[in-house]
Amino acid sequence: MPQTTTDHARRRDTLRAALASHDPALDALLVTDLDNVRYLAGFTGSNGALLVAADPAADAIATDGRYLTQVAEQSGDLRAIIERDVAKALLAQASGTVGFEATALSYADHARLAPEARLVPTTRLVEKLREVKDDGEIDLLRRACAISDQALAALVQEGAIRPGATEAQVARRLENLMYEFGAEAVAFETIAAAGPNSAIPHHRPTDAVLAAGDFVKIDFGARFRGYHADETRTFVLGAPAAWQQEIYDVVRAAQTAGREALVPGADVRAIDGAARAVIEAAGYGEQFLHGLGHGVGVQIHEAPTLGKLGSGTLSDGAVVTVEPGVYLPGRGGVRIEDTLVVRADGPELLTRTTKDLIAL
Amino acid sequence: MPQTTTDHARRRDTLRAALASHDPALDALLVTDLDNVRYLAGFTGSNGALLVAADPAADAIATDGRYLTQVAEQSGDLRAIIERDVAKALLAQASGTVGFEATALSYADHARLAPEARLVPTTRLVEKLREVKDDGEIDLLRRACAISDQALAALVQEGAIRPGATEAQVARRLENLMYEFGAEAVAFETIAAAGPNSAIPHHRPTDAVLAAGDFVKIDFGARFRGYHADETRTFVLGAPAAWQQEIYDVVRAAQTAGREALVPGADVRAIDGAARAVIEAAGYGEQFLHGLGHGVGVQIHEAPTLGKLGSGTLSDGAVVTVEPGVYLPGRGGVRIEDTLVVRADGPELLTRTTKDLIAL
Repeated sequence: MPQTTTDHARRRDTLRAALASHDPALDALLVTDLDNVRYLAGFTGSNGALLVAADPAADAIATDGRYLTQVAEQSGDLRAIIERDVAKALLAQASGTVGFEATALSYADHARLAPEARLVPTTRLVEKLREVKDDGEIDLLRRACAISDQALAALVQEGAIRPGATEAQVARRLENLMYEFGAEAVAFETIAAAGPNSAIPHHRPTDAVLAAGDFVKIDFGARFRGYHADETRTFVLGAPAAWQQEIYDVVRAAQTAGREALVPGADVRAIDGAARAVIEAAGYGEQFLHGLGHGVGVQIHEAPTLGKLGSGTLSDGAVVTVEPGVYLPGRGGVRIEDTLVVRADGPELLTRTTKDLIAL
Repeated sequence: MPQTTTDHARRRDTLRAALASHDPALDALLVTDLDNVRYLAGFTGSNGALLVAADPAADAIATDGRYLTQVAEQSGDLRAIIERDVAKALLAQASGTVGFEATALSYADHARLAPEARLVPTTRLVEKLREVKDDGEIDLLRRACAISDQALAALVQEGAIRPGATEAQVARRLENLMYEFGAEAVAFETIAAAGPNSAIPHHRPTDAVLAAGDFVKIDFGARFRGYHADETRTFVLGAPAAWQQEIYDVVRAAQTAGREALVPGADVRAIDGAARAVIEAAGYGEQFLHGLGHGVGVQIHEAPTLGKLGSGTLSDGAVVTVEPGVYLPGRGGVRIEDTLVVRADGPELLTRTTKDLIAL
């Protein structure tokens, strides 16, 4: 289901309500983060900004001449201003107190614009809205995850994960399969990590050759109409050794515990804790060094953070990853990761590849 | 030739000299732009910052625990501080007046850090150094361009650019060939634009099918150890029509004029003007709407800008693209682009694929 200008207009209205309750109250918000511009207006060009005003009639989008046609197609319901200096052009039209995104405007841009209007820094106004996905967004995330599952199934089916192949070959082939199944891009550079490299949480694929007995950890995802999938599965080449089966079972149990803790209103640190407790009880707490998961949507990493560095509670309608891992340096590691929708009646699993340990 | 810590140390010394002559004089520069961190220290992690001080003994790099091993390998000649908040950790060590990169620090980060030290905004201190490439950098750019040439030759050789193929298939295949020839990544998303789509300067490959009589414009490049190639060639499927041969010849002549204008000390707008004059004289001035070229190095687009929006003169040792185009909406377009090193005895061509019009 393509997102419509109605979806974008509804999001702008939700943001508008937040402007009134902001302290101080804002007459408008200048949106310069390009992911937020896309979220609120559908525009995907590389130069653009949006003004969302207390009075909807004052809303406007700005971009430069390269995107004249594109902005009319993607954001036809908004008044478009064609100027290279998009932030300055929008500020010139704004009256009263104007908020700006403090993490998305550089010191230099702020200094350049500050004389133009009464500017107030704001934090995470749009990002907070983005935490809860609407039905249109969930459909796109479902598609991105389905493409990822299909591509991984085809990769396994054709025997690409085999002794003699290199990590880089496995990664490239999987990326090509994602394109074949309809991805517009890869969500991030695919991780394929074999043998001892599987113990490196974020390993970049090399010419290392897969060998019998190796764990092969694959972390990947497709992007579909701007929305990202994030999935990890770990395979073993040949019959698993006892230590491999052991850490796989621990990670799988932790991942189940993490998924079961995805309840609207839960503290994000407690969700991490539920999975971590399983790994700690098995004696591998020191080998699980990263957080449990993160939100995913128009960015591959977005709010909420499920981990010790996170804060707050989980929202109904959030889409998050659950990705515990155990990494034994020099030997190998396991990570199992799903993308899920948080719902009151239990999470919806978007990445549906089996989590049984597959011996190839 | 891999870049050595000696290269990086020399670059930091060059920057150190610029700190003393800055107004006001700086006791140190806090480098937060990650491309600049890599350029000055070799470090490629996703979280890092560098302090370059008037006293070399006070230089330090900061990153978080994920990169403990990596920072020792890549930047072993520098004192490393392991803290997640890298900018804050470095500022805590700096004395006196500390410059920061005004376009690479957000308003929010500046507000957070400002009480910590006397901070002075600086503009393009490192970017200015990066304009002139050293021999190690030119070697890497030469490799990136050679991989790009090899991949395009293989693509033509195997007949992948043919009626019936889609733009997306051509683009994906070329990207795979770049990986096969040694690219670590693609420098940017490959453009493959056929028929009327070739008239769109920055077209995203679609499922549009190549047909006899089409122009096929391909803009692509490999990345090799952090350095980018940028190359465009335009092919024709079957014998060129008269209008196709005409605009091809115009663009080719303009590209030659642009390359010949690459003289150290030349005004960057005059270089653009030399190529543009050829296109205007042929009556296609309105169909060449973008600038002539740009610097290329650790970023795909960096200083200098060869065009009306640029300023200053060309440096000996700069590496730039020369890429004029003529685009006839609804019919087709031609762009021819090389990456070259500017030298006193004439530019060195790094992208060496023929610029004859190839009919496939």
